[in-house]
Amino acid sequence: MSHDSSRPVCILGLGLIGGSLLRVLHDSGTPVYGYNRSAATVEAATADGYQASADLTAVLGRAADDDAVIVLAAPLFALPDLVDAVAATAPRCLLTDVVSVKEKVSAIVAERHPGGRFVGGHPMAGTSRSGWAATDPELFAGAMWMVATADQTDPEDWLTVARIARRAGAFVVPAADDAHDRAVAAISHNPHLTAAVTAAVGAGESRLALRLAAGSFRDGTRVAGTAPELQRAMLEGNATALLNTLSETIDRLTAARDALRDHGSTEVIVDDGHRARLLYEELAGSGPAPISPTPISDVQVGAPGWAEELRRQAHLGRVWTD
Amino acid sequence: MSHDSSRPVCILGLGLIGGSLLRVLHDSGTPVYGYNRSAATVEAATADGYQASADLTAVLGRAADDDAVIVLAAPLFALPDLVDAVAATAPRCLLTDVVSVKEKVSAIVAERHPGGRFVGGHPMAGTSRSGWAATDPELFAGAMWMVATADQTDPEDWLTVARIARRAGAFVVPAADDAHDRAVAAISHNPHLTAAVTAAVGAGESRLALRLAAGSFRDGTRVAGTAPELQRAMLEGNATALLNTLSETIDRLTAARDALRDHGSTEVIVDDGHRARLLYEELAGSGPAPISPTPISDVQVGAPGWAEELRRQAHLGRVWTD
Repeated sequence: MSHDSSRPVCILGLGLIGGSLLRVLHDSGTPVYGYNRSAATVEAATADGYQASADLTAVLGRAADDDAVIVLAAPLFALPDLVDAVAATAPRCLLTDVVSVKEKVSAIVAERHPGGRFVGGHPMAGTSRSGWAATDPELFAGAMWMVATADQTDPEDWLTVARIARRAGAFVVPAADDAHDRAVAAISHNPHLTAAVTAAVGAGESRLALRLAAGSFRDGTRVAGTAPELQRAMLEGNATALLNTLSETIDRLTAARDALRDHGSTEVIVDDGHRARLLYEELAGSGPAPISPTPISDVQVGAPGWAEELRRQAHLGRVWTD
Repeated sequence: MSHDSSRPVCILGLGLIGGSLLRVLHDSGTPVYGYNRSAATVEAATADGYQASADLTAVLGRAADDDAVIVLAAPLFALPDLVDAVAATAPRCLLTDVVSVKEKVSAIVAERHPGGRFVGGHPMAGTSRSGWAATDPELFAGAMWMVATADQTDPEDWLTVARIARRAGAFVVPAADDAHDRAVAAISHNPHLTAAVTAAVGAGESRLALRLAAGSFRDGTRVAGTAPELQRAMLEGNATALLNTLSETIDRLTAARDALRDHGSTEVIVDDGHRARLLYEELAGSGPAPISPTPISDVQVGAPGWAEELRRQAHLGRVWTD
């Protein structure tokens, strides 16, 4: 059960995330191959010099033969069928994923492939474009990659998955499934909803308004341009956590409207937002080049209490770097 | 009453907008000088080779002597005093402004300087930074610059102001004060509120959440980093129009919450947002380089009905380019 770079990786789904992972692992010398159900994608990936196939059973057979780590890189709605196929053809392979919610993926794996080896993951990277044409081996450079870290997680399997994230150029953020899902509701899924509503209100006003739109509108609505089916899969897959952040968003905006109507003031919402943004910039920087994150220190993966200690330090904003 | 580039321009306020205008007009050969109440700003501008002074009466005396166009480039709350000073010292100078609301500025000028010559304006450009250090002669390159266009506007004065905007590198968008204020509520002021609430909800969740924050949070909250006093002056100065767009925002988010809670669906908000964003990209492009806008055609400024026709074409998304 080695976790060095010679262990093969098999990626199921070659869209933006899966395809970019195929590229960066290949470029870093890891044996890697992928499956995509679209022949056009397979052709494009093959033409670019990568190993790809539209034959799922054959790809999984190869993964079983060479003990590859299998990466689920398809939208949530496509996972049940893929996990069924893994359970049928490559049941002993270590499985991970790159999907934006973690509790639902864990539930699907537990139901469809009980006893399967699984350590979930989620790279925090993306663009509003999608598909093979948008793939980029630099997509994960400096990005945060959540790796699911539960008390019962197998430490060797955890290290294998975490090192794939590191080879892709990302920093590893250990977290429990539920904490991850609440966090991404707040910093990724809710921003998709506020971007969508901001865009709709702006475009609903007039063409003159869109003509006058500048930086605040351009940046604030960018992710509303993401393919709707991808957004919906992501948002609806995290409905419970998202309902909470959405309700808080509505409550805060309602309080802001009342303060503006009754007292002509935007003080609370502007100050809260400004303080929050500064806190974020303190952690991540304000420019395109992120601040180097503080590494997690003094944790031996596999030592007693390792998972809890990794989660604790990650909650302080630190990352695992090996 | 020439409106060529040899007519001097006098800028009151040398923050991001006023200072950037001083730079670009100077660099394009227009005689230009500015006033700022802060000695440090005046010193910085002077050290950079520009003409600036902290003596308002002296600056306005010079403007009266050389028939300069005076540009009000201070926050809304500072305008009454500045307009009083203009009325006292340079009452015959043509006056314009670069403030983000237009009805309130027009009301201040009408009250403090009745009979003064005034054509309002608003360049749609900015960054989340402020002050002289943030000034940039390229700030207005390709930006939209609203120039107030009412039936009673003097055509020569309108041309003078519009040509200053053009010399700064901007496209001119003719519009009525009230249409402008509704438009910027929808595409600039409302986005500041949604950015603020998005930032507050994200930071309120956990430090882990901020650690995982990526592009959607970074871009969607960027303008929440703007100095709170500048945001408040802008937002509260447009309270009536902003209340409408804020209420619409709340209504749309509430409908989205109900649909997510009752049907597990985000279809309406995601599709509306996506359609709106595509409409915007069709007009402005999706990348950093904007699409060249369609020019207003066949309007002679000063001919019968010129102002109405300019506004009509601007409502189709067109711009005036001379």
